[in-house]
Amino acid sequence: MDELPGTFGTSSSFALRLGQTVFSLASLFCMCSHVEFYSYTALCYLVTVMGLVVPWSLTLLMVDTYSIFIKCLPHQRRIILIIFLGDLVLSYLSLAAACSTASVIQLLQDAGGSFCPPNLKVCDGFGLSAAMAFLSWFFLSFSCLINFWVLPSM
Amino acid sequence: MDELPGTFGTSSSFALRLGQTVFSLASLFCMCSHVEFYSYTALCYLVTVMGLVVPWSLTLLMVDTYSIFIKCLPHQRRIILIIFLGDLVLSYLSLAAACSTASVIQLLQDAGGSFCPPNLKVCDGFGLSAAMAFLSWFFLSFSCLINFWVLPSM
Repeated sequence: MDELPGTFGTSSSFALRLGQTVFSLASLFCMCSHVEFYSYTALCYLVTVMGLVVPWSLTLLMVDTYSIFIKCLPHQRRIILIIFLGDLVLSYLSLAAACSTASVIQLLQDAGGSFCPPNLKVCDGFGLSAAMAFLSWFFLSFSCLINFWVLPSM
Repeated sequence: MDELPGTFGTSSSFALRLGQTVFSLASLFCMCSHVEFYSYTALCYLVTVMGLVVPWSLTLLMVDTYSIFIKCLPHQRRIILIIFLGDLVLSYLSLAAACSTASVIQLLQDAGGSFCPPNLKVCDGFGLSAAMAFLSWFFLSFSCLINFWVLPSM
């Protein structure tokens, strides 16, 4: 069961964590490159959540790297449980943030120029940020489900 | 493992399905009692998702009732897998719909009277609908996780 692709410490887990880190960093970058996000609660929420996902994914990415290239770490039930719970909470928060941002941007674009800031590229940047957050959520929930699948057999 | 509370066919699963059905029906009722929801994509999306959750939960509620009071149904891996996948998809959709609705309502309330319809009770009704959708998501994701926990041992 420990050989299941995507389990903590495997090369596919490394790939999933790399995806999470890259997409959450991209989402954060797209959002923070425009200061206007500060006016909307949903967009601030996305920045907060991605600010949590980045260190979480980065830490697990480093642990996976250590496990693959240097020394295979033992699989302890308690560690897998903590990773599963972290992934679960962050995946729900990411999905919530991505959906909130997407719906707010759609509403602002419908409302026209007076609400969406005059430079159209700003709204496009926010939309790209929401898309990156969705991709980050996808990888997070995948990691979460795989670790939960392994848990009962440990 | 079959005796785990919340597994398909147990009395706690019946309680979870009852919660899902009641809250999704309440969410649908709160939203549809005001025709203004039709103007916003996020609110239409909530109605669509709750329109999917209601028949799904109601069907499983009836199956659970049959299993408890009349005849204990056998646990087949394929059936549990289908129930898990249905719960997973609907729980993600519910969370997405609830978050989108909540963020849109918050934005409309911030924008003031010209966007949120003049009668304040309308916005309150939409907020209540989003809250009910959150509760429905909570029960759905709980059912989903329990069925996924049982799956590897079957």
